[in-house]
Amino acid sequence: MNIDMIRAAAGRIKGHARRTPILTSPFLDEIAGRRVFVKAECLQHTGSFKFRGGWASVSALTDNALKTGVIAFSSGNHAQGVALAAREHGAPAVIIMPADAPAVKIENTRALGAEVILYNRETEDRDEIGARLSQERNLTLIKPYDAEMTIAGQGTVGLEIAEDMTALGVTKADVMVCCGGGGLTSGIALALAADAPGLRARPAEPEGFDDVTRSLQSGKIERNARLSGSLCDAIITPQPGNLTFPIMQQLCGPGVVVTEDECLRAMALAFERLRIVVEPGGAAALAAALFHPDEFTGDAVIAVATGGNVDAAVFAKALETLA
Amino acid sequence: MNIDMIRAAAGRIKGHARRTPILTSPFLDEIAGRRVFVKAECLQHTGSFKFRGGWASVSALTDNALKTGVIAFSSGNHAQGVALAAREHGAPAVIIMPADAPAVKIENTRALGAEVILYNRETEDRDEIGARLSQERNLTLIKPYDAEMTIAGQGTVGLEIAEDMTALGVTKADVMVCCGGGGLTSGIALALAADAPGLRARPAEPEGFDDVTRSLQSGKIERNARLSGSLCDAIITPQPGNLTFPIMQQLCGPGVVVTEDECLRAMALAFERLRIVVEPGGAAALAAALFHPDEFTGDAVIAVATGGNVDAAVFAKALETLA
Repeated sequence: MNIDMIRAAAGRIKGHARRTPILTSPFLDEIAGRRVFVKAECLQHTGSFKFRGGWASVSALTDNALKTGVIAFSSGNHAQGVALAAREHGAPAVIIMPADAPAVKIENTRALGAEVILYNRETEDRDEIGARLSQERNLTLIKPYDAEMTIAGQGTVGLEIAEDMTALGVTKADVMVCCGGGGLTSGIALALAADAPGLRARPAEPEGFDDVTRSLQSGKIERNARLSGSLCDAIITPQPGNLTFPIMQQLCGPGVVVTEDECLRAMALAFERLRIVVEPGGAAALAAALFHPDEFTGDAVIAVATGGNVDAAVFAKALETLA
Repeated sequence: MNIDMIRAAAGRIKGHARRTPILTSPFLDEIAGRRVFVKAECLQHTGSFKFRGGWASVSALTDNALKTGVIAFSSGNHAQGVALAAREHGAPAVIIMPADAPAVKIENTRALGAEVILYNRETEDRDEIGARLSQERNLTLIKPYDAEMTIAGQGTVGLEIAEDMTALGVTKADVMVCCGGGGLTSGIALALAADAPGLRARPAEPEGFDDVTRSLQSGKIERNARLSGSLCDAIITPQPGNLTFPIMQQLCGPGVVVTEDECLRAMALAFERLRIVVEPGGAAALAAALFHPDEFTGDAVIAVATGGNVDAAVFAKALETLA
């Protein structure tokens, strides 16, 4: 895994993924006590950075592999990112989703042209289903984070941050990244190390699901005690990846752990001051930047708003924090 | 008023106003029955395109005029746009606002460094207050729409649409613009006529406040019967401007009138499918594109999402339309 793979992914993605803007507000600067720059990846196609990894992976396949198609396991953002990337390549996509996933997410994934296969979390083994389908149909598995092409695609976020922040004259700052398995965090870390070495990636995680933060502290892969039960569903993974962890260990600063309530308040401020829609898991980095000022030094911080796929009811709950 | 003034404003604005993205969603395309491109001007500084007109106006002042300062009348987006533009030029700004304006808007305008002067709508004449202050302090009045520099600033939105849509290969389509006094609509119309003559600006207005639509039909300036009482407060003006109307008459296609409910539904779809926050008046153009397909021909339509300054309670009301 190296920077050349990220640059190659950037070349393949160009004109397909959106180059998302960096947003700012003097009101957020005042809360944080320093300048806050938000990379609005919630404005990406399908509403999250996952489209980048999906596109980078699918676009690297041979014509034959495209013809037979791809498969992914996901109940959320990765599903939609892979589905749209596959459709735009004319490749069939099979997405394995839990039968109890929100109906709207199943619908959306189908509407993006994917064949959705539902499984029962209690009685069925999704890996077994996936392995059988892959073999029967010769499908290529697109992993959500622990794969080189996925990391390369997500790393293009880092290339854009490096370029934009250099143009803005911000050459020394922390870049907070909402972190699940570490695909985005490690990709951004590699890109920054190459193109803006004064910028440092750091993971932001929700309380109770701070596996990466603890792993970085202990120097070995730590697991979360729970595997579900957070509003921040988009960034809940059991543990850092085998590929992503060594990269984060080498390049990232310490993690910052935020509460669910802080994520909701960050969502509300992003609504009010930046006019973007951010999901709870996608607001962890901004929550860290706004509400944990003592974790930072220097006069600027960058926060990646990683996704914006959130139910109206949860968003309404976030807005209540403004009252 | 001509295209050179818009190009000059674009030169002054460059690096100060945000170049806002064009957003799309296959889900919106399906609703509209054609491709829908949304110019997300709600992501502009201060949350609306008004910052452009503010900057274009303030940046054209002499050093002496900057030193004495500017004045504007507004309870909303124009106030914040002028306040921020003035602050960034080191110019004092006086904003005359009704005492019954929402507290948060008064607060925000003050937080952007402006001196806010409140008046009583029932008992005081704002024009008299403004004239007296202007004379006493030698302030320059920045008009919200019926002034060349304002139109020039707003017209930069049209230059960007022309460039981006040409790059996307969309050379023939209607550009729906949420329309109050016509500063933005006429500015965009001039820019499109120069740089993308196959694109045509058309005003979108809320029911009951369709003065521009009726004026374009009758060929003379028509007034609205009511002057308040719409959720779309950002685009409620008594009648088209004396400068803006002839431009719109020459260059614009017919207006489209939308209901408040359609604006709320468009806001909800912008939340769900584009992850942006749009205010009711800023959603009129998207509402026209989505819910009035018979008003259009061709396979594409562009809608300008003009602003995103909306109270949480109103936004929550919009989200209810998704249920």
